Amino acid sequence: MDSRDGYTWTPTDGLKAGVPSLGVITPSTNLSESEEEFYDVIVVGAGYCGLTAARNAAVEGLKVLLLEGRDRIGGRSWSSNIQGYPFEMGGTWVHWGQSNTWREIVRYQMMNEVEKSFDFSHGVNHYELNIGLEGSTMSHDEEDALLIAALNKFTNIDGAYGRNMIPLPYDMFHVANATHLDDVSAQDRIDAIALSLSPQERAAVESFVLLCSGATLATTSFLEFMHWWALCGYTYAGCIDMLITWKFKGGQSSFAIKFFQEALATKRLAYAFNSPVNNIQDTGRKVQVTTRDGRRYHAARLISAMPLNVLGEVTFDPPLCAGKTKAIATGHVNQCVKVHAEVSNKDLRSWTGVAYPHNELMYAIGDGTTPAGNTHIVCFGGSNKHIDPEDDIDATKRAVTNMFVQQKDQPNIERLVFHNWSKDEFAKGAWFFSSPGFLAKHLDDMRERHGNVLFANSDWALGWRSFIDGAIEEGTRVAYEVRTELTKLREVHSSS
Amino acid sequence: MDSRDGYTWTPTDGLKAGVPSLGVITPSTNLSESEEEFYDVIVVGAGYCGLTAARNAAVEGLKVLLLEGRDRIGGRSWSSNIQGYPFEMGGTWVHWGQSNTWREIVRYQMMNEVEKSFDFSHGVNHYELNIGLEGSTMSHDEEDALLIAALNKFTNIDGAYGRNMIPLPYDMFHVANATHLDDVSAQDRIDAIALSLSPQERAAVESFVLLCSGATLATTSFLEFMHWWALCGYTYAGCIDMLITWKFKGGQSSFAIKFFQEALATKRLAYAFNSPVNNIQDTGRKVQVTTRDGRRYHAARLISAMPLNVLGEVTFDPPLCAGKTKAIATGHVNQCVKVHAEVSNKDLRSWTGVAYPHNELMYAIGDGTTPAGNTHIVCFGGSNKHIDPEDDIDATKRAVTNMFVQQKDQPNIERLVFHNWSKDEFAKGAWFFSSPGFLAKHLDDMRERHGNVLFANSDWALGWRSFIDGAIEEGTRVAYEVRTELTKLREVHSSS
Repeated sequence: MDSRDGYTWTPTDGLKAGVPSLGVITPSTNLSESEEEFYDVIVVGAGYCGLTAARNAAVEGLKVLLLEGRDRIGGRSWSSNIQGYPFEMGGTWVHWGQSNTWREIVRYQMMNEVEKSFDFSHGVNHYELNIGLEGSTMSHDEEDALLIAALNKFTNIDGAYGRNMIPLPYDMFHVANATHLDDVSAQDRIDAIALSLSPQERAAVESFVLLCSGATLATTSFLEFMHWWALCGYTYAGCIDMLITWKFKGGQSSFAIKFFQEALATKRLAYAFNSPVNNIQDTGRKVQVTTRDGRRYHAARLISAMPLNVLGEVTFDPPLCAGKTKAIATGHVNQCVKVHAEVSNKDLRSWTGVAYPHNELMYAIGDGTTPAGNTHIVCFGGSNKHIDPEDDIDATKRAVTNMFVQQKDQPNIERLVFHNWSKDEFAKGAWFFSSPGFLAKHLDDMRERHGNVLFANSDWALGWRSFIDGAIEEGTRVAYEVRTELTKLREVHSSS
Repeated sequence: MDSRDGYTWTPTDGLKAGVPSLGVITPSTNLSESEEEFYDVIVVGAGYCGLTAARNAAVEGLKVLLLEGRDRIGGRSWSSNIQGYPFEMGGTWVHWGQSNTWREIVRYQMMNEVEKSFDFSHGVNHYELNIGLEGSTMSHDEEDALLIAALNKFTNIDGAYGRNMIPLPYDMFHVANATHLDDVSAQDRIDAIALSLSPQERAAVESFVLLCSGATLATTSFLEFMHWWALCGYTYAGCIDMLITWKFKGGQSSFAIKFFQEALATKRLAYAFNSPVNNIQDTGRKVQVTTRDGRRYHAARLISAMPLNVLGEVTFDPPLCAGKTKAIATGHVNQCVKVHAEVSNKDLRSWTGVAYPHNELMYAIGDGTTPAGNTHIVCFGGSNKHIDPEDDIDATKRAVTNMFVQQKDQPNIERLVFHNWSKDEFAKGAWFFSSPGFLAKHLDDMRERHGNVLFANSDWALGWRSFIDGAIEEGTRVAYEVRTELTKLREVHSSS
């Protein structure tokens, strides 16, 4: 089935909106028109967080309604399967160091359904670092050495590469001083170590940090980057392993659908896609949610699993507290642009490259071989030189081509696949990344419940915030909280 | 409450059997004499695996009976809280790289209830390496450098420190060649690299490997050690982080009890401690379990969460298949001896040491400061020079004292705390570790179900086998399998 989300471009068909995905749910609802149910819990948002919350609640005996604005599950993590090959539209890589995600992968016995993005056995087996007009190539071992040197300088704030500052990544502010570090931007940190960096090291570390944040150096919290670094074991090798190596052979949506199917099998899951929510009203005795088209649903509790950047579109009654309102108004800064290019050059499979700071796409790797035998290159840009890829396809193709300076490696583009996360009304950006000072001020605000409404999202997870893992962490947390609470309530009622 | 398990020794009270633990359950059963219930599932064994299986099944709506031979939960992982300080009798450390464990820690919001074992801020801040009669001390940085050099030589079988041989730790035999490596013993591997090792490196790597296996070098599978190494990110720093750094402030039993309490709160958990199982009979229509004292219980499914080394004590009807029978007859080889010493020397808090191969205890670290201000040293021995610590307390004290060669650091022992895992009828050894060839032959056998009986244990987990994490992995797997299966059966019945 095709989702409304995403775009493809091919020489034959040109630009087309909508791409096929295993995550599209048909029929789009299992509610009957006449039904007037009272649910234990309504979950708003069917990304991994909402899916986890809905699944856990349903499996544990609660009557659940799942509402989603899109036509598909997965939120900011989904794949489009085109001619048998999955293009990851947002969210790709998983690792056994990501506890919540991996727990689910093992539970669904999918640990053999992952494969490596990298394959350094093909012809163009090198790293290309294009700084402005200056291009150079080096071996992947030299690439690693460059990044290790650069990132070690960048992260070594405490003589221990961050181990002393963030010893316990799930408690980011475990060391009180870390609060101050959140005020530091990536730009501040680069400025502080600039004299120690070679031009190549500087371009390598800057583009790597921006790959993580999707923002600009000035709008990237240094501490939030350090948090990723700590989760990855304080090493570049750990970052590569955990951030960009293992992906699902069948694509992210092959994983997400398991959650939905399990929930559905309980027969306690009602759902409605294409159902954006307008208003959430908590009377104290129950919660009422109103969709954009005026339908109303009622439940004892509501789990809002919407991302930070879109929460402002929903009105809450009573209104949200000042801290949360301010966090929502500020939002996060990640405007990552992810573009897949299928190119006929088979040898590019082993290529990796950076084109920075001049190019609209700045970081790319050979990510797979399509059934047609073409190479799949995944390219990342962001706020540094932001584009809306569908607005000018020729410019987007140029941004891909510009990753390659060597004439002989010029890619012959046969397909582009992408989604515009910045213009997505249900995301307004990619994965969460915070600007300086934001988390120290607002992490607690974002996590706080509001009466019978609980807020869950990867955007304010404690561990792998911004990742699928953080989404599952959060969905797990609130489902547990709601179930425990409703069980107690029922005991009180049945004993009174 | 005191458990029958464990021993303490103090100068005043001498040797005493039984230690207090939060994991002791009173009353020991919630069954009434008259009751004749039919359960959805009976879980045999209340270690982390059985606890997880029982909890998940109960929370997801099944009627569960949990049977346990001991007077306490936790199996091979439990703590004794003595005067407000937890001594870990078996199983101690946890890490966010252990996906199943950490998922539960976050779910129970216990991520701030962990603390570091190491504290390198006190007086005797060094590493002591005693090889035979030769003692030497070095800084902890030198200790790290020594271990890194030694372990890198030991693990570098593929030019990539094992990354190529075990790229995907949850699929240990992902690279077919790994099967052959399972035939190699740690001794074989040491022999192969012996010329490249200094005497200090050799003692350091051998004692570290034996710390992991609790066996002898000849009975330690090299591949199983490599599996640990791979899970730890292929580095010594990763091993230290994940294997021996973070522990619960309140002890392991403060974690295990959460599982039990959550299951109990569902009101679908029946349980009986002090109830060792004798016989498990599967009629095809139901499973009947008979306890040692002749009580019988019936269920649709049975989850055996007993360790490999004690499965031979239970008779199965129909008998188990040949592969499983052989695996049980072979067993695993870990006979770790773990002895806690509370010593009055405050400065020893920052000490770490090895006394190998001459001493009965070979590896020890300063693990904490007790409420009395004493230092808590945890010492490990194993099959290398195996002892039953309660048999000769003076010899056990000498084995502790012998860890320290420097006269000025001689510990003044005020308390010993330990459990004899080798003589424990419900364990017959410590955490799983395999002899050469065992896993390639028997991993699948151990995991296989037997009609309506499912076998779950950390001993045959795919990921963190031998760890609490592997226990939770396994409990999760079988509870999911049983629930899915029974739900389908009921649908068939209700529609027919």
